[in-house]
Amino acid sequence: MLVNGKQGNLISIRDRGLLYGDGVFRTLRALHGKAQHWPLHYQKLQQDCAALGIPCPDFALLSAELNGLLLQYPDGVVKLIVTRGQGTRGYAPPARVDPTHIWDITPLPDYPAHWGIRGIKVRLCQFRLSQQPRLAGIKHLNRLENVLAAAEWNNTDPNGADVVEGLLMDPEGNVIEGTRSNIFLVSRGKLITPDLSRCGVAGVQRDRVTAWAAQHNMELQVRDVGLDEVLHADELFVVNSIIGMWPIRELDQQYWSEFPIAAKIRHELNGQDA
Amino acid sequence: MLVNGKQGNLISIRDRGLLYGDGVFRTLRALHGKAQHWPLHYQKLQQDCAALGIPCPDFALLSAELNGLLLQYPDGVVKLIVTRGQGTRGYAPPARVDPTHIWDITPLPDYPAHWGIRGIKVRLCQFRLSQQPRLAGIKHLNRLENVLAAAEWNNTDPNGADVVEGLLMDPEGNVIEGTRSNIFLVSRGKLITPDLSRCGVAGVQRDRVTAWAAQHNMELQVRDVGLDEVLHADELFVVNSIIGMWPIRELDQQYWSEFPIAAKIRHELNGQDA
Repeated sequence: MLVNGKQGNLISIRDRGLLYGDGVFRTLRALHGKAQHWPLHYQKLQQDCAALGIPCPDFALLSAELNGLLLQYPDGVVKLIVTRGQGTRGYAPPARVDPTHIWDITPLPDYPAHWGIRGIKVRLCQFRLSQQPRLAGIKHLNRLENVLAAAEWNNTDPNGADVVEGLLMDPEGNVIEGTRSNIFLVSRGKLITPDLSRCGVAGVQRDRVTAWAAQHNMELQVRDVGLDEVLHADELFVVNSIIGMWPIRELDQQYWSEFPIAAKIRHELNGQDA
Repeated sequence: MLVNGKQGNLISIRDRGLLYGDGVFRTLRALHGKAQHWPLHYQKLQQDCAALGIPCPDFALLSAELNGLLLQYPDGVVKLIVTRGQGTRGYAPPARVDPTHIWDITPLPDYPAHWGIRGIKVRLCQFRLSQQPRLAGIKHLNRLENVLAAAEWNNTDPNGADVVEGLLMDPEGNVIEGTRSNIFLVSRGKLITPDLSRCGVAGVQRDRVTAWAAQHNMELQVRDVGLDEVLHADELFVVNSIIGMWPIRELDQQYWSEFPIAAKIRHELNGQDA
């Protein structure tokens, strides 16, 4: 655990990350001493910092700190937070920003391997995401919407026992994302993923699938997607940097059992992780 | 500065307040060793905690801590934060919540007295608030919208030099609030304040004005308010617990110079502060 380059697990109660959620973050998987797709994550971090006007710490500096941590913790979930730091009281960003950056590593979750092959059960969240074009796509620290959505079910409750992810819609009924993942549809040989210009978080794995599609000349549409289209897709899958990819085998009383295209993409994406 | 009852100004980097903005807060004014309207603030804190499913610390416990702090810092801006504390990784709230509560006191801002009498200049923010009925009204820690709005102007810029507050609208053009205040209109002897069921923060001073209106048999309407209605109001004023009340003397090239009803309300609200 590092806070501004120093060993520690504490930050000031006056940090704007706590006061306002005024910051951004990344979540990466470390395996055998390597943080997967770190340059892609840095690129996103930089974009997200720029969108909020937070100076992004230097790539070389962050890489050096990360490599030091990986020597000690070669496997785990790596979290990197960058906040606007401290400042004078009030919402307005201070004239001179001295950002805070934080590294934390926790053990890798022990997900069943068959979730990646036979798929997962997903529920439809009742909670609807709000539309905020100025914050859409950004992995910022204002995540109460995800918290409220994830609070809708739990694995000790009979109805939630085998539910692994929840799907979120916006107020207009567009399907946007999972509570912690991006979603893709396979439909008549095309890939479709929701437009995230009004809400949602655009993750690194979403970009990787997009890049894969381009490399393999597979059409990929980024656009509004209604629930009906999702329920009638040939295949569905969710992605994020910790889980990789999970196909969806059950959603809202619809069932899927074959995932030929998802399996192919998953195989190749995982291959590049090595 | 107290964190969970102990002297200190640091919290864990794993606190959900930082990770997700998963918490609520209050801002009060302390004057001569008394925290103004503390019971009203506690009531709001309790409501906001309940809305997010966070156990609210006990009134007696918080009051005792607050009184201890006021002995040392009799005057200042008192901030109280309650977060969902730490937990396992992931958005879902932990089964057993051990909330974090934080007190911080900073010096009272030195606002010119004439702002309360002759009024302030307010700008119309370009930034629009999103609509999220599940979070509306709550003073939660997801405040990036306020940050982005407050970043639109600054007092070193010629256009922003004398701007004291920014007015926020929702995507439908309803006027909602100031970046850090609630707004009231006086129109034909009635008070009007925006409905906050889709966005905005419902502050303690808004409730106090509401109570004042009831006590004085003055009609108060809580409903959607368009910009045109605001610009044609007989009087406008904003309220919050630190500023008290400021009438608006200028907004979007409209000017006001007489505030008979605002002055009356302000006088009585301030009187009750003593």
